[in-house]
Amino acid sequence: MAPKSWLSIPASSPFSLANIPFGIISTAANKTHRPAVAIGDHCLDLNEFAAGGGFKDVQVDTSVFSSPTLNAFAALGRPVHRSVRTFLQDVFAEHTKYPQVLMNNESLRKSAILRRDQVQMHLPMQIGDYTDFYAGKNHAFNVGCLFRGPDNALQPNYTHLPVGYHGRASSVVVSGTPIKRPNGQILENPAADPKVPIFSPCRRLDIELELGAFLCKDNEMGSPVPIAEAANNIFGLVLMNDWSARDIQAWEYVPLGPFNSKNFGTTISPWVVLMDALEPFRTKGIHNDTKLLPYLTEKEEKNVYDIRLTVDLAVEGQQPSTILRSNGKHLLFSFPQMLAHHSIGGCPMRVGDLFGSGTISGTEQGTEGAMLEYTKGGKESLKLTGGEERKFLQDGDTVALYGVCGDEESGLVGFGECVGQILPAPKL
Amino acid sequence: MAPKSWLSIPASSPFSLANIPFGIISTAANKTHRPAVAIGDHCLDLNEFAAGGGFKDVQVDTSVFSSPTLNAFAALGRPVHRSVRTFLQDVFAEHTKYPQVLMNNESLRKSAILRRDQVQMHLPMQIGDYTDFYAGKNHAFNVGCLFRGPDNALQPNYTHLPVGYHGRASSVVVSGTPIKRPNGQILENPAADPKVPIFSPCRRLDIELELGAFLCKDNEMGSPVPIAEAANNIFGLVLMNDWSARDIQAWEYVPLGPFNSKNFGTTISPWVVLMDALEPFRTKGIHNDTKLLPYLTEKEEKNVYDIRLTVDLAVEGQQPSTILRSNGKHLLFSFPQMLAHHSIGGCPMRVGDLFGSGTISGTEQGTEGAMLEYTKGGKESLKLTGGEERKFLQDGDTVALYGVCGDEESGLVGFGECVGQILPAPKL
Repeated sequence: MAPKSWLSIPASSPFSLANIPFGIISTAANKTHRPAVAIGDHCLDLNEFAAGGGFKDVQVDTSVFSSPTLNAFAALGRPVHRSVRTFLQDVFAEHTKYPQVLMNNESLRKSAILRRDQVQMHLPMQIGDYTDFYAGKNHAFNVGCLFRGPDNALQPNYTHLPVGYHGRASSVVVSGTPIKRPNGQILENPAADPKVPIFSPCRRLDIELELGAFLCKDNEMGSPVPIAEAANNIFGLVLMNDWSARDIQAWEYVPLGPFNSKNFGTTISPWVVLMDALEPFRTKGIHNDTKLLPYLTEKEEKNVYDIRLTVDLAVEGQQPSTILRSNGKHLLFSFPQMLAHHSIGGCPMRVGDLFGSGTISGTEQGTEGAMLEYTKGGKESLKLTGGEERKFLQDGDTVALYGVCGDEESGLVGFGECVGQILPAPKL
Repeated sequence: MAPKSWLSIPASSPFSLANIPFGIISTAANKTHRPAVAIGDHCLDLNEFAAGGGFKDVQVDTSVFSSPTLNAFAALGRPVHRSVRTFLQDVFAEHTKYPQVLMNNESLRKSAILRRDQVQMHLPMQIGDYTDFYAGKNHAFNVGCLFRGPDNALQPNYTHLPVGYHGRASSVVVSGTPIKRPNGQILENPAADPKVPIFSPCRRLDIELELGAFLCKDNEMGSPVPIAEAANNIFGLVLMNDWSARDIQAWEYVPLGPFNSKNFGTTISPWVVLMDALEPFRTKGIHNDTKLLPYLTEKEEKNVYDIRLTVDLAVEGQQPSTILRSNGKHLLFSFPQMLAHHSIGGCPMRVGDLFGSGTISGTEQGTEGAMLEYTKGGKESLKLTGGEERKFLQDGDTVALYGVCGDEESGLVGFGECVGQILPAPKL
């Protein structure tokens, strides 16, 4: 049974009472960046709510709600996230224990409840470091085949550790930010010898469908996070589109990994879905035949989440087509495993650090998390409903990722959208 | 002729009047982090100096000197760095135009001039993102031979672009910070098949002798920094030791690059030597036979710096031995080229971002910038003066990098030391 609210929440909303995701908003009337939670078509301005005494019945340092990012709230730790989320669920419940807090408090309702279509969203966290993993085994295999052939598609280390690389924190942007097509060095003829690059706008611009995890706890340099504690250090998840310039990538990535092919922009969805909201959707990931070292061995077998993921592509001026459908469970390693591995040598993590899961692909045609995979390196085309076709993205194309758990009966727990439009490359 | 000062400056000091490097200090009496410049065995507390009216004869927003990092000062731009540095050189000159500012102002001298051995140094900048390049061609070739054999040592892209990868900003620490040996996955027998890693403290712990460059200007996402303007975006240089776990690196680095083999700690020297101070030491780097694309083509042929670099290693309780000697000129690409390349696809840079040059090796035995190269992958040994030998670092070893330009006659322009001691790996 869906928890009912005195506030009207459309059944199809990803922001049911079962969710309560956190984000950073501003409005035309108040440009200050401040925390909010999303509920149906509305959001609750937590700064306003706190100022109006809304949190007097729950133990929380309300100064965190006047911060321009969620870092301070995240740093309070998972028990506080839990009590605040549970309290807000109760405040909005039809039979709330706290009717005087909001339901019957007209002035606070008016000042603190905003329509979501009238708020501007911002990056939810100040991101210290961003790391992109590669835990989508089906994607790693598919792309490995295209870049190195099937014999070397997965390297010997792949099943032993969550492969990852350091990304570029400054290029992470919030959903809605346009993405300029990057210029760079590409090979017109990769088979030519000697290989001589040309300078060109990227011709193979792609998406990567990922989940992102924000950390809520620091560890000191030299002090790894044990696997048993790692889940406590994760604040919540977002959708992530790790835009990728495949032609730039193919030329630049040896031997030190992707660089300019990735750092021109990575888009995340604005609402952080807390780990507690995702708890009912735990499931098993891709089975790993490899016996893991103890520092990566989790007790919990259900260590990933059943999140239905879709990718929509809209040609400029046309309706979007859903081009790809995947699921958050198609991962070989969990976020706690990624954290345990990332810190095992002593790397210090900070509140607000962001991990990307790696591209999440299924095994069937149409479940890929990147166009490169679907089109087999650009040999085939994705058909769009308006009659157009795409091998890679064209200028003006808009890509939107969606992710949702559960059903309308119990209340959807979703991420909203993670969207970006491609603008032409700068003329230099 | 060395510019003389009314303050006693030892001729052998890297911090002659020709230098004036900037750093962040605190003292036992005043724990506040604040900017300072180094002069001989002393430093000038710029917060105190500004408060005492020291800057009244120069145009600068003195609020930057009460900031806990140099970011605000750096963001004022190179013309301001130049006028502040020139002014301070004049203030300390024997025949200063401004005797009343400091030389004859006993109370300000007492409060603002501190002995360097009585101040604590801190990270000079708040580092948003850290990128490590690989522009030391001799190093890239030597290490490439060890990792992939001489035929694939340098990849086809190597001479066309400054290869680099995103590093871990949170693991950059200031000189003097101890470094715990990392644990991680290594192969006991890399030739075995199938390859099965063990969990172990790193057995091949190494250094990397690099220069680091701090940026002083932002660029917006999607707006590359043109090569002709790139030098204006660079604040100054530091020494950098990019500690490297070679056995962890060899196993983990395919296909996405080094990760835990690097992110357990990177040490930088505390005093940022401004680009103007290095200007007299411009020289030509390694010749590049490859015709570069226009976005990487610099007018200035002398695009690197003649900096004498040395590496000292001290076994615990013993005197240090100088084990390696190199020079800052052994680079195939300059920092402006690195910046032009890094931003060409639109990657946004921020004030305080740090670039590592890559390991700087010469071509002769003893000029390598890493132990791995000198010992040919651990086959040979470095002899230390006390009779000990090293293939890689042992617990308790202390490594100090030094870098200096010019001569005592004209005044040395140096970096001081970049030092770290290896502590045992955590027991997990």
